[in-house]
Amino acid sequence: MKALMYYGKEDVRIEDIQEPQIRPGTVKIKIAYDGICGSDLHLYHDGPGAPAPTADTPHPLSGETLPVVFGHEFSGTVAQIADDVEGYTVGDEVCVEPLLVCGECAACRAGKYNLCEKMGFIGISGGGGGLSEYIVVQSRFVHKTGAMGLEQAAMIEPLSVTVHAVRHSGADKADPGVAVIGGAGPIGLFTAAVLRAYGHTTIVSEVSEVRRNKASETGVADYVVDPSKEDLNAKVREVSEGKGATFAFDAAGIGSVVDQLLDTLAPDGRLEIIAIHTRPYELAIPRLMMQDRSMGASIGYANDHPESIRLVNEGLIDLNPFITSKIKVEDIVEQGYNKLLNDRSEVKILVSMN
Amino acid sequence: MKALMYYGKEDVRIEDIQEPQIRPGTVKIKIAYDGICGSDLHLYHDGPGAPAPTADTPHPLSGETLPVVFGHEFSGTVAQIADDVEGYTVGDEVCVEPLLVCGECAACRAGKYNLCEKMGFIGISGGGGGLSEYIVVQSRFVHKTGAMGLEQAAMIEPLSVTVHAVRHSGADKADPGVAVIGGAGPIGLFTAAVLRAYGHTTIVSEVSEVRRNKASETGVADYVVDPSKEDLNAKVREVSEGKGATFAFDAAGIGSVVDQLLDTLAPDGRLEIIAIHTRPYELAIPRLMMQDRSMGASIGYANDHPESIRLVNEGLIDLNPFITSKIKVEDIVEQGYNKLLNDRSEVKILVSMN
Repeated sequence: MKALMYYGKEDVRIEDIQEPQIRPGTVKIKIAYDGICGSDLHLYHDGPGAPAPTADTPHPLSGETLPVVFGHEFSGTVAQIADDVEGYTVGDEVCVEPLLVCGECAACRAGKYNLCEKMGFIGISGGGGGLSEYIVVQSRFVHKTGAMGLEQAAMIEPLSVTVHAVRHSGADKADPGVAVIGGAGPIGLFTAAVLRAYGHTTIVSEVSEVRRNKASETGVADYVVDPSKEDLNAKVREVSEGKGATFAFDAAGIGSVVDQLLDTLAPDGRLEIIAIHTRPYELAIPRLMMQDRSMGASIGYANDHPESIRLVNEGLIDLNPFITSKIKVEDIVEQGYNKLLNDRSEVKILVSMN
Repeated sequence: MKALMYYGKEDVRIEDIQEPQIRPGTVKIKIAYDGICGSDLHLYHDGPGAPAPTADTPHPLSGETLPVVFGHEFSGTVAQIADDVEGYTVGDEVCVEPLLVCGECAACRAGKYNLCEKMGFIGISGGGGGLSEYIVVQSRFVHKTGAMGLEQAAMIEPLSVTVHAVRHSGADKADPGVAVIGGAGPIGLFTAAVLRAYGHTTIVSEVSEVRRNKASETGVADYVVDPSKEDLNAKVREVSEGKGATFAFDAAGIGSVVDQLLDTLAPDGRLEIIAIHTRPYELAIPRLMMQDRSMGASIGYANDHPESIRLVNEGLIDLNPFITSKIKVEDIVEQGYNKLLNDRSEVKILVSMN
């Protein structure tokens, strides 16, 4: 079958590889769409880093070295089901929670398998990927997506990252209030969508005009602010009638944004960091202490896909406006990895194999 | 009446001042004991800083300039009750929540009056203090202490700081687990006491041998660790059977201790900062993110005194072992402020006026 293989920095190749075979406990899926993620961009442009293996060192869970099949945000239809697996029918539309976990470490035993010591991702660490015609996946990681369609189903994975972060913050169970999101890339936009689904009023802070417009057009931002020209805190105080934000989410990965967001918080407010920070952040602890504030950070997802699917199928979130392009795998470098680097109007690009 | 007046750095004086008179909405208290707090030490040795007024600038809520009556951790008996106040009887043993709050700001309106914009403390910012024979206090801040006795009642104030922090962390409602406390000064010890009262197993990390012994002798530490000689994280993993701590509390105020404590946390664990940090803390955000951890900080107390009183009166916390000296106000400099600075075996020194 045809697959896009990741070899390393600026080196991906369409190759003909062996079609994976059904094994006990698995489901075989004919892949429909694979979305391009920020991690894919980073791997393509900058080269491999954990959890990707190298050409010499295999990933501890997959046992694979580079090249590996690329792509981890994907949807498809069930093509075959192992004899010992129940609950699926051929033709079911599904998405995949693309995880490789050990099942044995303290985190796995506590059900927090997103924190597995050996954590790997299908489509990055081996075990097949979304940029191929078929994949065989353990049934525990295959989720039926119902009536939402295969395009939205391909975005359940990034949506689950934000559902996990919102649940980690406690905003899913909190009284509706004002929530501020710093950064309107795909994860910032999805976070705003989830917060609105849970009843919060959203203020999206973003310096890029194109991205601010996207936050408005997709309906996920009740208000947008350009923090380089407007006073974000003043806007938050105005919208919240002086109270401040009950939640803030950092989807920018910049220390000064974290400071801005902390300052918008109401007494006892909570900041959640979703973005990767590559530099240490200098926290002035009184920023937390003098207002009884909290902050947390989270990674990935664990047991969050069913909630993501519910939010979409119940009409609380519409993912369709986030699809900005649909391309063929042959065009993935120019119209995918290079375009996303330069064109801020792009949100999600869905790739199909045929 | 006799009172200890705070004039500024290394300048306190016993003076004869006018006895305060009952006013509508207040209770008059004959003071029994006043405990010495770390803030008092700081004010005495280093001089005034907010929320203390200066000799020229009055505190916005009390309207007073220096000198002010000193002392904010105190107990006493009800001596007189305003006609419009109900629920008290002359002779009731009480403690005081020594706050001056505006009642109008966003925090006050939200019931989070510990975060009042103009926050002041009785005994620091004016409004009388614990180092005098009598005080008149708004009844909302006077709490009946039941059968615990006037000595324990004088420690309900610092206990409430730790009850507030423990509740802010969520540890009061969490399943029992392992909790680590960094620092075994009075606040660290009280925090350990509260965590044990809520069913947690406590590990106290402290470099001072004298303080470690105090944590053991008072029964608040299930385990003590000297982090300069032992591997704290290894001990936590051992006691928690590999899981890690579900909660950690920084009562040391040192960045490297915060890092140590974060590393002891289980997946999804929570760190709470109680100590004042005077320097920025360089947070490596992956320390939070890669294990879905959270951290928070809190200050003071709001609606926490009743819970503190319950914990003591139900026998879940015994404050008596923390009283290391009882002195007269005439000896407060040498046997109080100077001794606490140099003698790590001291925990709480109670001062009486007569």
